[in-house]
Amino acid sequence: MTNGEAAQNEKEVIFHISKKDNFPDWFGEICRVAELADIRYGVKGFTPFLPWSVMTMELMFDILEGVLQRKGHLPMLFPTVIPESNLSRESHHVQGFTPQVFWISEFGDGEKLDERLALRPTSETAIYPMYSLWIRSWRDLPLKRYQRCTVFRSEVKSTRPFLRGREFLWIESHNVFATHEEAKAQVKEDLETTKEVVTDAFGVPTMVFRRTQWDKFPGGINTYAADTLMPDGKVLQLPSTHDLGDNFARAFDIKYINESNETVYAFQTCYGPAISRIYGALISVHGDDNGLRLPFKLAPYQVVIVPIFKGKSADDVIGYCQKVEKALRHAGLRVYLDSRDATPGWKYNYWEMKGVPVRVEVGQREVKQEKVVIFRRDLMKREIVALTGLAGKVQTVGRDYDSVLRAEAESRFENLVVDAATLGALEGVLDKGKIGRVQFCTTEADGLICAEEIKNKTGGEVRGTRIDVEESATGACIVCGKAAKAVVYVARSY
Amino acid sequence: MTNGEAAQNEKEVIFHISKKDNFPDWFGEICRVAELADIRYGVKGFTPFLPWSVMTMELMFDILEGVLQRKGHLPMLFPTVIPESNLSRESHHVQGFTPQVFWISEFGDGEKLDERLALRPTSETAIYPMYSLWIRSWRDLPLKRYQRCTVFRSEVKSTRPFLRGREFLWIESHNVFATHEEAKAQVKEDLETTKEVVTDAFGVPTMVFRRTQWDKFPGGINTYAADTLMPDGKVLQLPSTHDLGDNFARAFDIKYINESNETVYAFQTCYGPAISRIYGALISVHGDDNGLRLPFKLAPYQVVIVPIFKGKSADDVIGYCQKVEKALRHAGLRVYLDSRDATPGWKYNYWEMKGVPVRVEVGQREVKQEKVVIFRRDLMKREIVALTGLAGKVQTVGRDYDSVLRAEAESRFENLVVDAATLGALEGVLDKGKIGRVQFCTTEADGLICAEEIKNKTGGEVRGTRIDVEESATGACIVCGKAAKAVVYVARSY
Repeated sequence: MTNGEAAQNEKEVIFHISKKDNFPDWFGEICRVAELADIRYGVKGFTPFLPWSVMTMELMFDILEGVLQRKGHLPMLFPTVIPESNLSRESHHVQGFTPQVFWISEFGDGEKLDERLALRPTSETAIYPMYSLWIRSWRDLPLKRYQRCTVFRSEVKSTRPFLRGREFLWIESHNVFATHEEAKAQVKEDLETTKEVVTDAFGVPTMVFRRTQWDKFPGGINTYAADTLMPDGKVLQLPSTHDLGDNFARAFDIKYINESNETVYAFQTCYGPAISRIYGALISVHGDDNGLRLPFKLAPYQVVIVPIFKGKSADDVIGYCQKVEKALRHAGLRVYLDSRDATPGWKYNYWEMKGVPVRVEVGQREVKQEKVVIFRRDLMKREIVALTGLAGKVQTVGRDYDSVLRAEAESRFENLVVDAATLGALEGVLDKGKIGRVQFCTTEADGLICAEEIKNKTGGEVRGTRIDVEESATGACIVCGKAAKAVVYVARSY
Repeated sequence: MTNGEAAQNEKEVIFHISKKDNFPDWFGEICRVAELADIRYGVKGFTPFLPWSVMTMELMFDILEGVLQRKGHLPMLFPTVIPESNLSRESHHVQGFTPQVFWISEFGDGEKLDERLALRPTSETAIYPMYSLWIRSWRDLPLKRYQRCTVFRSEVKSTRPFLRGREFLWIESHNVFATHEEAKAQVKEDLETTKEVVTDAFGVPTMVFRRTQWDKFPGGINTYAADTLMPDGKVLQLPSTHDLGDNFARAFDIKYINESNETVYAFQTCYGPAISRIYGALISVHGDDNGLRLPFKLAPYQVVIVPIFKGKSADDVIGYCQKVEKALRHAGLRVYLDSRDATPGWKYNYWEMKGVPVRVEVGQREVKQEKVVIFRRDLMKREIVALTGLAGKVQTVGRDYDSVLRAEAESRFENLVVDAATLGALEGVLDKGKIGRVQFCTTEADGLICAEEIKNKTGGEVRGTRIDVEESATGACIVCGKAAKAVVYVARSY
C-alpha cells in the first residue's frame, strides 16, 4: 500500500495465530491486521471493505464476469429498490425473504412514499416484471443476463466480515428459456462455471449438493449448491444455482409465442455467486498461521520488491530495484517496490502477513551478480535467480504457487466423507470436522422432521444429495428407521 | 447482442429524429430503441440499465479507475447505509442533503431499527468517522481513497435516464492531507483527471467553473465543476471536486500528530464523477439524427461484421467472416459477427442506430479479392481495404474516428461565450443556446439575490467564475449596478 500504512509499529505485523486451533480469532485478527475490513462502522452487519480486499474482489469479479460473458450472459443493472407489490407476487418467495427485508417508507423530512420500497435481498421480483415486457416470442429466447451489485438481508445469525454480512457483494444471473430442458442445462452450466472459477481459478474446492425441498430457494423447484470446507470443519455454502421451473414465469407473467404460434410460459434459472463470501472462504482456506496466502491470480500485488542496503549502497540497490520493478511491470505483473522507511525484516513479516505470493529481495550482492533472491510465500523458501528472464521465472513460480495452494486445499477433502449408521456415530464424525454420509427417509418436505432431529442431536445439517455420484439408498433412515429414499450428507455449517 | 433482440420488426431500427430540433424526444427514443434503459420499472427516477449502456459504463469505469489508481488512489467500499447520527454531524451538509435522503426505519414484518438509516446520498458521513480512526500521524497522510458505487437522492426535478436519476452510478474519491495547500493541489489534480478522462478519452469537452458560495457543496469551502454543453444549448454539470478545508475534519474529528508532535486537524477533498450522468452526456453530445455514435474506446462492439450472401455463396462468405472475426479479436478488438436471420440493410440500420464505430461488410466479391468493405459511422462512408493488415487498419480508423467525434463536439464550444451587458441582451444570448458572460456584484453569499433575479428574468443560472482564464471585473453588476467583483458565466442548465 502506498499511503496511510506507514511502518509505525513493527510489532503489529508479526502475525501468528493457529488457524486450526482457533479459527474465529484467526479470521477476526487477519481482517484487522491485514486491513481487509473494519468492523467499527457502527451498524450491525455492515462493514467497510478496505483496499487490500477490494482489489482482490475486483479481480474475482473480472474472472467471473469474463466466464459469464464468454458463455453468452450480458451485464445489466437494476435499481437497488423494489416496490413492495412486486415482492409479493410469488407467495413462497415473499414468505422466504420478507423476514430479511429492509424497508424504505419515507424520505426527506418525514415525507411518506406512496408504496414501501424494499432494499433488494435478491432481484427476481425487480427483474421479472421487466422480463415479462421484454419477452414476446421464441426469437427472444434464451435471454441470459446478469448484474453485479450488493444485496441486503437483515440476517438473524451473527455476522462477520465477508462470511455473513447484512450487505454483500455478488453477481446474480437471471436466465429465461423456452423449455425446462434448456433451463436444466443452464443449471449444469452454472455448476461448471462454479468449478471453473471457484476451484480452478481461486483454488477453493467444493462439493456440490442438490438441496432438500425444505432448504431450497423460496419459489424455485430445485437448488444446487457448492459447499466448501472451512478450517474449523464447518461447511460454507458458496454459489448456488436454482431451477425455477415455470413458477416465477406464472407469477410474473413471462410468456412467449412459440414456433407453433401458441402462447406458453417460459422456464427460468438464477445463479448467485457471492463474491464477498467467496473472498471470505478463500482467505480462510488458503491462509496459514503467518497470515494470508492470496492466489497469484488474485493478489493485488503479485510481487513485492524489498531493497536491502546500508548507507552508501542505497542508490545502487534502489536503482537496481527500480529496474526490476520496471521489467516485471512491463511483463504485466502487479508489482510494488517497498521503499518505505522500515527494516527489511519488518517488511518481510508485513508482506507475508498480507499474503503476497512472491517477494524479491535485492541487496548489494545481488546487484553485483545481476541476480535477485526470490521468496515464495507458499513454501516459505528462498531461491537465487538471474535478473535475465526474471519475469518469466516469476510467472512460472506464480502458476506453481497456485497449484500448491489448490493441492493443499484439496488434500483436506480426502477421506472427508465418513459413513455413519447411527446418530451417535454421526456426532463422532462431525466432532472430527468430517462430513457424515447417512441413509435418510426423504428429501421431500416430509423429511424435515428427521432433519431437525439430526440438527438437535448432532448439530449437523442435512446438506442434500450428491449429483455427481450415483448413490442409491439401501438401508433404513438413520433417524426414523423407515426405508431410506436418499443418501444425504450431513455437516456442521456456517 | 447475441440473444433476445432478434430481427422481428425491421421498421423499429430506422431511427431518424432531429437531435437539434427535438433533443428531449431524441434522447427518450434513443434510450428505448437502442435498448439503453427501460423507464417502465414503476418507481419514479429508478431505471434499469440494459447491456448496451452497462457495457460502455463498465469501460468508462475502467478508464477512470485506471487514472485514479495511477495517481495513487486506492479502491475501498463502504456500506450503502449511513446511521442518521452520522449524517447530522456537519450542519451545512445535513441541511443540504436531508431533503433528498431515503430513510430505512424498519425491516422484516414491521420490526423497527434502533436508529434510522439513510441510503447514502454521498458518503462523507459514512467514511469520515472511519478516517478519524484510521488517521493518527503525519505518516498516515496523504490518504487517497475512492469507491465505486450507486448513490440515492430523491430529486424533486423531473428525472430522466442517465441524466438525472434517483439512483445513479458514480465514483467518489475522498482524500485527506496534512495541509490546505496539498488539498488544493488535489483539487487541481482532479480537474486534470476530468480533462484526461471526460475530454481526452470520452471526447466530451467541458468548461470549468468555480461555483458561487450559494451553489457549492454543502459543508465545503469551494466547489469546482466541469460543465458540458448539451444539444439543446443547456449546460450539464459533469464531475465536481470540492475543497473541504478542515470543515469536515472538525466535524468528524480527523486529526493527526504532525512532525512537531502537535495534534492538528487534517484537510480534505472529495471528487465525484457520476459515470451514468457522463454516459448520458456523451451519448447526447456524440449522437446524431441516425442514432448513437459511441467513442471507439467505449463501444461494447467496436466492429460489427455483416455477411452478405445469396443461396450457395453463404458458406464461403460466413467462413471468410469468421476468419475476419478471429483476426480482429486476436488483435484485442471487440467484435461481433452478425449472422442473424435478417437482411444486410436491416443490420446496417440497426448497428448505425446502436452507434458501432466500424462496420465490416463482406460479400462474395470481397471473398474473391481477399478484401473487405469498411464503413465508418462518423463519416458514414465506405472504403475497400485488404484483408491483410485489417486489424491495424481498424485500430487506425478507430483513433481517427475518436478524433472526429471530439473535434465535432469541441467545435460547438467555439464562439460559445458571448458578453452581455443587460438582462435583455443576456436573455437573447441564452435563447441562442449560448453562454453569457456578465459583470456581477459578488459570488459570495450576498450575490444570491442578483442570481435569482437573473434566473427569473432569463432562465439562466450563474455557473460561477472561470479558473483557467484570468478575468477581472471592471464594470457594474448586470443586475444591481453595484461595482462588479466577479465575471461570471450564465447558462440555462439541467
